[in-house]
Amino acid sequence: MGKRADILLRFGERVRALRKEQGYSQEGFASACGLDRTYMGGIERGERNLALRNIELIADTLGISLAELMQEL
Amino acid sequence: MGKRADILLRFGERVRALRKEQGYSQEGFASACGLDRTYMGGIERGERNLALRNIELIADTLGISLAELMQEL
Repeated sequence: MGKRADILLRFGERVRALRKEQGYSQEGFASACGLDRTYMGGIERGERNLALRNIELIADTLGISLAELMQEL
Repeated sequence: MGKRADILLRFGERVRALRKEQGYSQEGFASACGLDRTYMGGIERGERNLALRNIELIADTLGISLAELMQEL
């Protein structure tokens, strides 16, 4: 995966930062997305190679575009 | 999925447009990505809910960021 941290780790950190910015707990954000809390925990820890539909679900729940979600990743 | 075309269809169209811009055939692009040609065909037709690692592979092969790949989706 090269010099940068793995994409799953970088994505998870990005999701965690954005949902905290919006004042969500991990559990509250998982619930708002309609995803299981343990699954969301796995995403934030970079343990889930999640697919495009769930990536879109996270962007929609945050009220941002996919491009914004992927910013600086 | 709302008013817009499904994310998988929009993403597939975006990948097709970008790889054509760069002069790749579908087969040549699949090969450059290290993915199967039939899998790439499925992505472009919006039939594949592909996951983050393969999305990154496509962006890397195109030489663009994930945010650029997701632009206007």
